[in-house]
Amino acid sequence: MTNNRTGGLADVIAGQTGISTVGKLGRGLTYRGYSIHDLAANAAFEETAYLLIYGKLPNETELRLYRSKLAGLRALPDSLRVILERLPDTTHPMDVLRTGISALGAFEPEEGRTQADIADRLMACCGAILLYWHHYHTNGTRIDTEAGGDSIAGHFLHLLHGSRASELHEKAMDVSLTLYAEHEFNASTFAARVTASTLSDFYSAIATGIGTLRGPLHGGANEAAMELIDAFHNPDDAEHAILRMLASKQRIMGFGHRVYTVSDPRSDIIKEWSSRLSSDAGDMRLYVVSERIEQVMRQEKQLFANLDFYSASAYRFMGIPTKFFTPVFVLARLSGWSAHIMEQRAANRLIRPSASYSGPEPRSWLPIDQRT
Amino acid sequence: MTNNRTGGLADVIAGQTGISTVGKLGRGLTYRGYSIHDLAANAAFEETAYLLIYGKLPNETELRLYRSKLAGLRALPDSLRVILERLPDTTHPMDVLRTGISALGAFEPEEGRTQADIADRLMACCGAILLYWHHYHTNGTRIDTEAGGDSIAGHFLHLLHGSRASELHEKAMDVSLTLYAEHEFNASTFAARVTASTLSDFYSAIATGIGTLRGPLHGGANEAAMELIDAFHNPDDAEHAILRMLASKQRIMGFGHRVYTVSDPRSDIIKEWSSRLSSDAGDMRLYVVSERIEQVMRQEKQLFANLDFYSASAYRFMGIPTKFFTPVFVLARLSGWSAHIMEQRAANRLIRPSASYSGPEPRSWLPIDQRT
Repeated sequence: MTNNRTGGLADVIAGQTGISTVGKLGRGLTYRGYSIHDLAANAAFEETAYLLIYGKLPNETELRLYRSKLAGLRALPDSLRVILERLPDTTHPMDVLRTGISALGAFEPEEGRTQADIADRLMACCGAILLYWHHYHTNGTRIDTEAGGDSIAGHFLHLLHGSRASELHEKAMDVSLTLYAEHEFNASTFAARVTASTLSDFYSAIATGIGTLRGPLHGGANEAAMELIDAFHNPDDAEHAILRMLASKQRIMGFGHRVYTVSDPRSDIIKEWSSRLSSDAGDMRLYVVSERIEQVMRQEKQLFANLDFYSASAYRFMGIPTKFFTPVFVLARLSGWSAHIMEQRAANRLIRPSASYSGPEPRSWLPIDQRT
Repeated sequence: MTNNRTGGLADVIAGQTGISTVGKLGRGLTYRGYSIHDLAANAAFEETAYLLIYGKLPNETELRLYRSKLAGLRALPDSLRVILERLPDTTHPMDVLRTGISALGAFEPEEGRTQADIADRLMACCGAILLYWHHYHTNGTRIDTEAGGDSIAGHFLHLLHGSRASELHEKAMDVSLTLYAEHEFNASTFAARVTASTLSDFYSAIATGIGTLRGPLHGGANEAAMELIDAFHNPDDAEHAILRMLASKQRIMGFGHRVYTVSDPRSDIIKEWSSRLSSDAGDMRLYVVSERIEQVMRQEKQLFANLDFYSASAYRFMGIPTKFFTPVFVLARLSGWSAHIMEQRAANRLIRPSASYSGPEPRSWLPIDQRT
């Protein structure tokens, strides 16, 4: 019996994966051997997703066909649209995705479909589910979810704003999806693998991923970072406030990481994009406030910014409402979850740990008339 | 770094729990110190659920109020009924529960509600969600989900059959719910705890539990056992077929257990109930076939029947369709999942294991025109 004394399975190897490496020597990230720097600089998100799900980088023909396949999978079943219309306008956007994708499993069950086809369908229509619900409840309109260009990034921004995004915005969104696509045995991926390990269906494992990502200690971190950054008018305000928060032991979201100990390789990439987007917008406030917070956290706590921190301002510049930051994370991570579900199934063993018991000793029965 | 070489986290202690002990010395099961034998013999399911969720056995007043509270929580929101009507009649019943409970989280979000209130609501309306969908699509009727007696067991059977169950059936169902209520870090409970560990909401963790229980290696086992048993006309047929299946290395569902090595203490209890129900029905076929299969498995493989095996015939005698066996498991296990979510939150640490990397070494970028 192996006892994970520190809890949370920190440093416990729960299985094998050939999909990504995270934080070797405290830094670095590869997807199937390719560095995140190369992928972010050279690959469209569709190439990254193809790499994760199909195991190789697509050639030109494969990529063209793949984009076309994905663009053809954006329509929602009529009954799913009715369900989205019935969810209240106050619904948490992650509950919309959890419920919508769970329902899609009823309309398009796994039997008779390949895993990769389901993964592609989910990536293609995830944004459609969220934004159909959003526009119906915000503007009373039933949007055409098949509109938009041929990239997942462009499709999302087009549906969100009702018009084609600028090339800069579409490219920044595309890079962000690649950065968020995959991250080894993070909590949502690991939970999805536990679900898959009972040989449950694909949609159940994805619903687990969405529900797990929803928490503020995981996918919710970029939303919390946005709220923090947005509260400050200038870098000096930010510095004073952060120092006060640190003095009172408050947690600052968007810094440090369970696995990376030196730096998060994705942070510099999205920081550069945040800088370009803020220059393009002619509004440097969020960027310079972010930089000062990063500087204070490094000096005071020796903590580095993680991916979530500069993603916050980058998303704001693209006009993405804060409450949709975690759903965008889902849009990206569907590729990684899918690859992990397929990998778990290919060499499955039920994931069923043990527990250390800390409760009452065995006790004799207490009849109801003797209870207090 | 601790390496779980056998995979599946077998024998890895993933955390502490004070809720139950499973298989100490290879046998035995307690809920908060009380043996499963005492609970099955003396406690109604509502007492068991109260013990799990509130941490103590209820006194007479508490139990009366608790039954009354649960009976008052059976109505479904109008929009949830519309959603259930929109799910196809071909939907997997576990997809109905996963989607229905996910949607309930949109109508009745956690903010402003206690965890115990949500747990009680879910136990009270889980059967209503399933059976409203069932009758609408099978008979075209919109049932009154508030009908039935004041027990969860009686309510379920009443909604299923449209009339009050016999005392014997209600009692057998009640015991079955107690037996299935809680089982430490089984896969669905563990997965629900991983979801809870990101500080996600209660409904997300429950949806994870449902999706994980759905698999044939977990909650689906009693359905597979039923299909097996049902195929045989008499014990001799069964014996010959099982011997042939064992010779060809086929897996026989309903036997053995990851944690119990000597016996499953719940099996003898449900076996006794299966015997009583079959005598009552004046039809011993399923029971004697089950007994012979048990005997063959013990002789040939030294494997004991687990809870799922005799639950199959017991449920059949109560008139429960095989496809609803796993949903009944959900109805029971909602109590255990809820207790574990509350326990995880009370001393939370993010559950995030590590992985052993088995993929390609770092490789240089491959431009698209050089790919095959």
